Amino acid sequence: MSTLHEQATVVDGLQINNWDRPVLQELLAGGVSGVNATCAVYHGPMETLREIADWYQLAASNSDLAFLANDAADIRRAKTEGRVAVLMGLQNTSSFGDDFRMVEVFHKLGVRIAQLTYNIQNLVGGSCYEPSDSGLTRFGANVIDEMNRVGMLVDLSHVGNRTSLDAVEASAMPIAITHSNPTWFVDNPRNKPDEVIRAVTDRGGMIGACLYPIVLGGEKASLEQFCTMVARLVDEHGPGRVGLGSDCTRNWGQDYVGYLRNGRWQPPTHPAPEWPAWPHWFAGPEDFPQLTEGLQQVGLDESAIRGVLGENWLDLFDKVFAGTES
Amino acid sequence: MSTLHEQATVVDGLQINNWDRPVLQELLAGGVSGVNATCAVYHGPMETLREIADWYQLAASNSDLAFLANDAADIRRAKTEGRVAVLMGLQNTSSFGDDFRMVEVFHKLGVRIAQLTYNIQNLVGGSCYEPSDSGLTRFGANVIDEMNRVGMLVDLSHVGNRTSLDAVEASAMPIAITHSNPTWFVDNPRNKPDEVIRAVTDRGGMIGACLYPIVLGGEKASLEQFCTMVARLVDEHGPGRVGLGSDCTRNWGQDYVGYLRNGRWQPPTHPAPEWPAWPHWFAGPEDFPQLTEGLQQVGLDESAIRGVLGENWLDLFDKVFAGTES
Repeated sequence: MSTLHEQATVVDGLQINNWDRPVLQELLAGGVSGVNATCAVYHGPMETLREIADWYQLAASNSDLAFLANDAADIRRAKTEGRVAVLMGLQNTSSFGDDFRMVEVFHKLGVRIAQLTYNIQNLVGGSCYEPSDSGLTRFGANVIDEMNRVGMLVDLSHVGNRTSLDAVEASAMPIAITHSNPTWFVDNPRNKPDEVIRAVTDRGGMIGACLYPIVLGGEKASLEQFCTMVARLVDEHGPGRVGLGSDCTRNWGQDYVGYLRNGRWQPPTHPAPEWPAWPHWFAGPEDFPQLTEGLQQVGLDESAIRGVLGENWLDLFDKVFAGTES
Repeated sequence: MSTLHEQATVVDGLQINNWDRPVLQELLAGGVSGVNATCAVYHGPMETLREIADWYQLAASNSDLAFLANDAADIRRAKTEGRVAVLMGLQNTSSFGDDFRMVEVFHKLGVRIAQLTYNIQNLVGGSCYEPSDSGLTRFGANVIDEMNRVGMLVDLSHVGNRTSLDAVEASAMPIAITHSNPTWFVDNPRNKPDEVIRAVTDRGGMIGACLYPIVLGGEKASLEQFCTMVARLVDEHGPGRVGLGSDCTRNWGQDYVGYLRNGRWQPPTHPAPEWPAWPHWFAGPEDFPQLTEGLQQVGLDESAIRGVLGENWLDLFDKVFAGTES
């Protein structure tokens, strides 16, 4: 008799791994059928093209394990085939340069999700880490219009609160926080106040509860605490408005976290940044089954758990990836 | 007997021409010895490198008329040689991408002046045309530190007021508004309120009075009005704090003004933007002698006129181009 986890279609709202065959195997071992895979953080257009080309190569040489997905139907198919459907995603609109038409270009190449800003102010808006948030810029409004039109999901996870609220107002389509927690759970700039979560979920959007240690409360946070937080979000925002966004960071050396923190916008910091330690109950994509068990243990019903594990992302993708022109 | 204009060293705080030999001849006809020549508006790093390479070619093939300058001494030498010393300048820190170290790279290539933002929000700060101004970002503070260090003049002309005030605070070196007028002269977003001008001049910086029609009050603005404005700035801020920044736009087709307005950040606007008409008394660089006459007619003394025409820019360049490390 299969477990609930084995039955469910599991979709991860975001992973930023250094992708290779062993990492894909970790996802399969964890029962993950769909994932938003980060192809850009500080990347400009040309750098992003290279990341996408890397994915074309990796998918071609590992087609027994994974393939690049265009829509939710591809993820459902991946579940039946025992493969991983990979949605290419951006964690920064820096990939679009200063040209809103690049949204369509990257969409044609397979990008389906884009976070408006990473960790610094950009042409589109303010970051959650910037002392002052510009709000959504005029260019940013054009980028959102174009994302709505072609069918690319707007992600607010690292975005400043003011820009986030502006983005919700500006978007004709539901939008998402793919990998953050509420500030009432852990008070960190990367987590979201109720006002922002509510604005997103009120318009059919979603929040993906995140396992990254700094937004989780560190390695000592318990599975029960995490699952209780997820259950409260389900309770407050509805069973269709909550998913998972693990933010897994597999297979990187320590230098990469330095790049994520400092980019090229400031000199290297000392001591050099190091990856945070993950909790023993979620060390990577193989541990997704533990989350299902934890959600069962805190009493979330089976239908809500299936929603959180993946069905909710699939419903949102169905809606948003269609675009406003279809 | 030579005129005051012929005697003076004339330096223009900014021109954004489509540079070629006839345009260089126009500058020589107008008695201009030094100019801040714009090499970037929305340009990213690679595009800016091409513009710089274009200048290397143009200067090499027109060395009888012009050369690329590194400092104020080069401009003084150009005056004695009857040539034009060209300082390469940027109207956007987009040329630095997201890497503060590009400041030094572009400085080594010859860039001596950089405006923090052009017409839209960028990674460094807010534009005068953006509805909301982020203020100077963390990256922006690093860019200014680096510009101070290597000896590159910060220009605030198209920058938002909040970012401008932040930049003055952040800079260890005097900074400039190379091509704007006071809002009390013409109330336009590209012009500056007293608070910003005062912050700049109080710390040894300068404002370059601008001839571009939209900040001048249109083609019908009179030479007397312009020169009276300059004289009032001299009176209020001191004879050393005022220069000229014509913003000449010679030799472009109409498509270029569409690019300046819309960049790639929004779709083409209709009707397509057209260049504004210039006043009959200043149609281009050949008309600089009229400005000298106009300044004499409004009663500015000869020493102040020499300052405004070029000596003030030379003094500021001497100070700033030395860098904080020298």
